[in-house]
Amino acid sequence: GLKLLLEAKKATGLPIVTEVMNPREVDLVAQYADLMQVGARNVQNFSLLKELGKINKPILLKRGMMTTIKEFLMSAEYILAEGNRSVILCERGIRTFETATRNTLDLSCIPVLKQETHLPVIVDPSHGTGYWHLVDSMSRAAIAAGADGLMIEVHPDPVNAFSDGPQSLKPEKFAKLIQTLRPFIELMGRTL
Amino acid sequence: GLKLLLEAKKATGLPIVTEVMNPREVDLVAQYADLMQVGARNVQNFSLLKELGKINKPILLKRGMMTTIKEFLMSAEYILAEGNRSVILCERGIRTFETATRNTLDLSCIPVLKQETHLPVIVDPSHGTGYWHLVDSMSRAAIAAGADGLMIEVHPDPVNAFSDGPQSLKPEKFAKLIQTLRPFIELMGRTL
Amino acid sequence: GLKLLLEAKKATGLPIVTEVMNPREVDLVAQYADLMQVGARNVQNFSLLKELGKINKPILLKRGMMTTIKEFLMSAEYILAEGNRSVILCERGIRTFETATRNTLDLSCIPVLKQETHLPVIVDPSHGTGYWHLVDSMSRAAIAAGADGLMIEVHPDPVNAFSDGPQSLKPEKFAKLIQTLRPFIELMGRTL
Amino acid sequence: GLKLLLEAKKATGLPIVTEVMNPREVDLVAQYADLMQVGARNVQNFSLLKELGKINKPILLKRGMMTTIKEFLMSAEYILAEGNRSVILCERGIRTFETATRNTLDLSCIPVLKQETHLPVIVDPSHGTGYWHLVDSMSRAAIAAGADGLMIEVHPDPVNAFSDGPQSLKPEKFAKLIQTLRPFIELMGRTL
Repeated sequence: GLKLLLEAKKATGLPIVTEVMNPREVDLVAQYADLMQVGARNVQNFSLLKELGKINKPILLKRGMMTTIKEFLMSAEYILAEGNRSVILCERGIRTFETATRNTLDLSCIPVLKQETHLPVIVDPSHGTGYWHLVDSMSRAAIAAGADGLMIEVHPDPVNAFSDGPQSLKPEKFAKLIQTLRPFIELMGRTL
Repeated sequence: GLKLLLEAKKATGLPIVTEVMNPREVDLVAQYADLMQVGARNVQNFSLLKELGKINKPILLKRGMMTTIKEFLMSAEYILAEGNRSVILCERGIRTFETATRNTLDLSCIPVLKQETHLPVIVDPSHGTGYWHLVDSMSRAAIAAGADGLMIEVHPDPVNAFSDGPQSLKPEKFAKLIQTLRPFIELMGRTL
Repeated sequence: GLKLLLEAKKATGLPIVTEVMNPREVDLVAQYADLMQVGARNVQNFSLLKELGKINKPILLKRGMMTTIKEFLMSAEYILAEGNRSVILCERGIRTFETATRNTLDLSCIPVLKQETHLPVIVDPSHGTGYWHLVDSMSRAAIAAGADGLMIEVHPDPVNAFSDGPQSLKPEKFAKLIQTLRPFIELMGRTL
Repeated sequence: GLKLLLEAKKATGLPIVTEVMNPREVDLVAQYADLMQVGARNVQNFSLLKELGKINKPILLKRGMMTTIKEFLMSAEYILAEGNRSVILCERGIRTFETATRNTLDLSCIPVLKQETHLPVIVDPSHGTGYWHLVDSMSRAAIAAGADGLMIEVHPDPVNAFSDGPQSLKPEKFAKLIQTLRPFIELMGRTL
């Protein structure tokens, strides 16, 4: 898996983001990845968080579907306390009674987090809604709410994707989305 | 109460929005109000909804704090089925486990509702968040998500307000907010 | 509807429980019903609750699917404050993320309510779970948790029931259930 | 920590239950513990679950506070699939909007789980409610709902406990509870 990622990096020049789930694998993965992701299900996996606090790579920490904003910040603190100050917080939807969307994207967490911390806050509208046709409007909304970045699922063939197909954009749609987002990003005083 | 509202209308020229809770009072209130509001707690008060379907005044229907999008549309249907076609849907936050905000504003309901219905959809970021300092960012986000309007709580003296003080903007802050919202509204192809 | 209920009462000698949804109909229904039920969707229909506080018939108040225990007690207070002291509280499940059951039956509300009020507390395991095959175990659990009564859906032909079929017991199953509940009721120091 | 546990075991003869959070520590802890617990926050820590599937010690798997019954069973499957067939499922309350209790104890999960699996199901009314004075009634209810066991927090000095004090019973109260539970256990055809 890691070898393949490295080849992809060489071929494309793109930085690698990859999820790490086992404290045992942190050191190995850190040699290859540019950004290490903690998935929603591991947001309170404290053994993993502490291990990630000891390395020198940026960490993308996804909010759990059951995690309050306060608990989310405490999870980040586990990494920060060990010395690693590069933590990016990512809102990806919380679990509610609503079933029309896969999760309920909690955009109000952006201004709340901004009051409590200086860490960057990004939003994942793909997992947050579960449907590609909702990604456009929720990307715009996330930017307007003050998000520092977006994490959007793209797949060349969503229908046959191994996972998360229904929420993935085709590359052409993604390119168009970026164009429609540009003026909103500029209005917020940011640059692409 | 109604007499006072009527005097306020004469003095200011502003249209009157008022909540109606009792099917018995629908006809009386309809003589005075320009827009009749159904509160979140009455979204499944079917006797009231049917009565409102028989009058000739626009209805502002607030989503309940535990109402699914599907149920919300079925509540609107109770009004529409009786003949009144002027229904405005209002997202005002749903109840979740998160306690940092009073409710969790579900902005993804805007694109979902837009797919299902031609009724206008507005957002109440004041009740939706419960705090005046979150109203700015969530107003921008609501517009960017495609909302047709906003409903914002304003009070000349929030600290001493009889209710909902913590979520109310002072008039000066409200005036400034409108100015910062203008370019987002225009970017969405709308006018103030 | 009411005439039919009255005939049923004459024929069977059974007392009548019926739901009232419109404040306008309270006086009429009160002439026929022995116990008047407020459904979960009307638990915060304050106009209705106040009207029911003025009559001289016991009220069965169902907890809303989105109602906290504190709010449930405040709803009861609307009836009590008008003079009607005969209020029975009924837990019937709250809305959560869990979808294996129709609602999540919150039995811990029984001891919590018992600390706060002297009003009787009953449980509806039929609506609370949504499935007839879960009614047995949750009826036993409700009694063991201290419930003062049960409200169980019975239908002679559940498959063809107009509503709530999947959660209804056939009369034979209901008769058997009562027999299995008897020793638990006695163990709690109560009698059938 | 482990050495202390071992001394306690020698001194008292009691079996040791201890939580394991890091896949790296599974083998070490397995040498000392009689039963290894996976906490609610680690219910979807798949690296840990797989590691626990390879050892020969019974596992106590706690349901997460936002885990559906279906997901709970899938987590158990991670352990079973690796060969370890000794898994005990533990309901300990789910996160809902209700704040009168620490969590909402979902007792209806017992009959639902019993239909889906042959694994034993136990209940933790201490974490499930968060208050010692609710433990009695919810212990009785859990037994009546068909639970195969209970997990109850006991502390000689709850007021000064390092954690979970408000939900811990004093040893005398625990001894009394066991006596009051005995007839319910017998009624369910079980023995203490």
